[in-house]
Amino acid sequence: MIELDLIGIGTGHPDHLTLQAIAAMRAADLALIPLKGADKDDLAGLRRDICARHLDDGRRIVEFQMPQRDAADPDYRRGVNLWHDAIAASWQAAIREHLPGLSGRVALLVWGDPSLYDSTLRIADRLELPVIRRVIPGITAIQALCAAHAIPLNRVGAPIQITTGRRLRDHGWPEGADTVVVMLDGDCSFRHLPPDGLQIWWGGYVGMAQELLDHGPLSLAGPRIVDARAAARAAHGWIMDIYLLRRADQTV
Amino acid sequence: MIELDLIGIGTGHPDHLTLQAIAAMRAADLALIPLKGADKDDLAGLRRDICARHLDDGRRIVEFQMPQRDAADPDYRRGVNLWHDAIAASWQAAIREHLPGLSGRVALLVWGDPSLYDSTLRIADRLELPVIRRVIPGITAIQALCAAHAIPLNRVGAPIQITTGRRLRDHGWPEGADTVVVMLDGDCSFRHLPPDGLQIWWGGYVGMAQELLDHGPLSLAGPRIVDARAAARAAHGWIMDIYLLRRADQTV
Ligand SMILES: C[S@@+](CC[C@H](N)C(=O)[O-])C[C@H]1O[C@@H](n2cnc3c(N)ncnc32)[C@H](O)[C@@H]1O
Ligand SMILES: C[S@@+](CC[C@H](N)C(=O)[O-])C[C@H]1O[C@@H](n2cnc3c(N)ncnc32)[C@H](O)[C@@H]1O
Repeated sequence: MIELDLIGIGTGHPDHLTLQAIAAMRAADLALIPLKGADKDDLAGLRRDICARHLDDGRRIVEFQMPQRDAADPDYRRGVNLWHDAIAASWQAAIREHLPGLSGRVALLVWGDPSLYDSTLRIADRLELPVIRRVIPGITAIQALCAAHAIPLNRVGAPIQITTGRRLRDHGWPEGADTVVVMLDGDCSFRHLPPDGLQIWWGGYVGMAQELLDHGPLSLAGPRIVDARAAARAAHGWIMDIYLLRRADQTV
Repeated sequence: MIELDLIGIGTGHPDHLTLQAIAAMRAADLALIPLKGADKDDLAGLRRDICARHLDDGRRIVEFQMPQRDAADPDYRRGVNLWHDAIAASWQAAIREHLPGLSGRVALLVWGDPSLYDSTLRIADRLELPVIRRVIPGITAIQALCAAHAIPLNRVGAPIQITTGRRLRDHGWPEGADTVVVMLDGDCSFRHLPPDGLQIWWGGYVGMAQELLDHGPLSLAGPRIVDARAAARAAHGWIMDIYLLRRADQTV
């Protein structure tokens, strides 16, 4: 049997790592580190640092090139499905090569928490190997954003909506929502909302050396964020950002 | 100046602790541990274990009795406000007593993550002391639940709603929701939903030695959970539970 540990490593700060994550890494016979393409060098670097710090035996670390998604496929869902198949196949090849007995513990380092807007679990389901999956939770970008701003995620007793940039752009402010957290937004989708009465707390590269933070009424902070995001993206070649929106007329 | 660190400690598993949390605890001149009343002895025990393991100098740990909320106050908001004032006053007294120079680092251990359904940040705002606040993120009960079940929190590209038992009971299934996570539910509020087409993933004491898990169609798993919850509560004297609901007709 192969024990496959999906290990949340937090979202950029190496000290987001939990003791549970470190123990799982130490117990691994094999750690698989995806390489995600040129613009994500800093992220591969972070994974490497974490491994160098917490895995004492270099032989057990295997980096592999992540297959690319066929962005030209007109059928988005099919494109994603084929891509996940290809990733599963590359894990499988790495496991067969480095654990030929098909027995032992394999560690997969996952950005943030494996449950939140991440496909690792779905890919693991496609493995045609005798596998037991285990998930080690990690700090999400949501926790990191709230911590950086020292704000509560929710108002007292009120609900929270977590959504994507695409949905915010296409569907607007979610019906009845109080606090909205937006992830996976390549395009500052908050620009499509009527800004009146909304506050924003924004963070780029949260928890990392390049961390950028801004907050304020959306009408004022929004344009600043658009500019800061474009400048940072140009400077670093990539950006990951997240934000929280809340109606300003309600008390925190 | 007092540096006040609100440190997320995860939701029951001592190895949820992050390296950042441990570093902040080690750097503290004073750690404040709330005692929450008889039914929460196990939780105070966990905090004590964490301190014993990660603070080498016993003198710096101060336990204090949490003031009780006046549940008889007919004005709920006023009751909560007065309660938060009383907690702030008790922190203030502990800090004045143990850090008379009003300078140094104070650690406050917070269950889960300080941003999620927790009042510590709001109480810290009431301190009449020269304070700089810092928040250290922690694993939430949501991450712990998804990890225990090895499930994704969201469907691909879909939103997530986090809410309370009270709101689920009073307002029903949130308009347009896909995945709903329910916390702070003393009463199995899922009983008030028409169960057809809903799946539930439930966890009590998640991450702890007493952990209980169940999942399935709400129509079948719901009654089992009501019974298991009542039995566990009777056996241990307390329970903390959380669940995720998702429409069954949609693929994960
Ligand atoms: C594919 S999702 C993965 C989320 C991750 N599993 C988590 O738990 O946060 C990537 C999105 O997370 C957010 N994100 C992740 N890390 C971040 C960081 N360090 N700073 C800002 N946003 C981040 C961004 O919204 C990004 O588009
Ligand atoms: C006052 S809130 C605090 C939440 C915490 N700050 C967090 O990050 O998860 C308490 C609620 O969290 C959930 N919870 C916390 N710890 C839990 C555990 N170990 N197992 C199940 N539910 C838990 C329950 O829904 C409980 O009613």
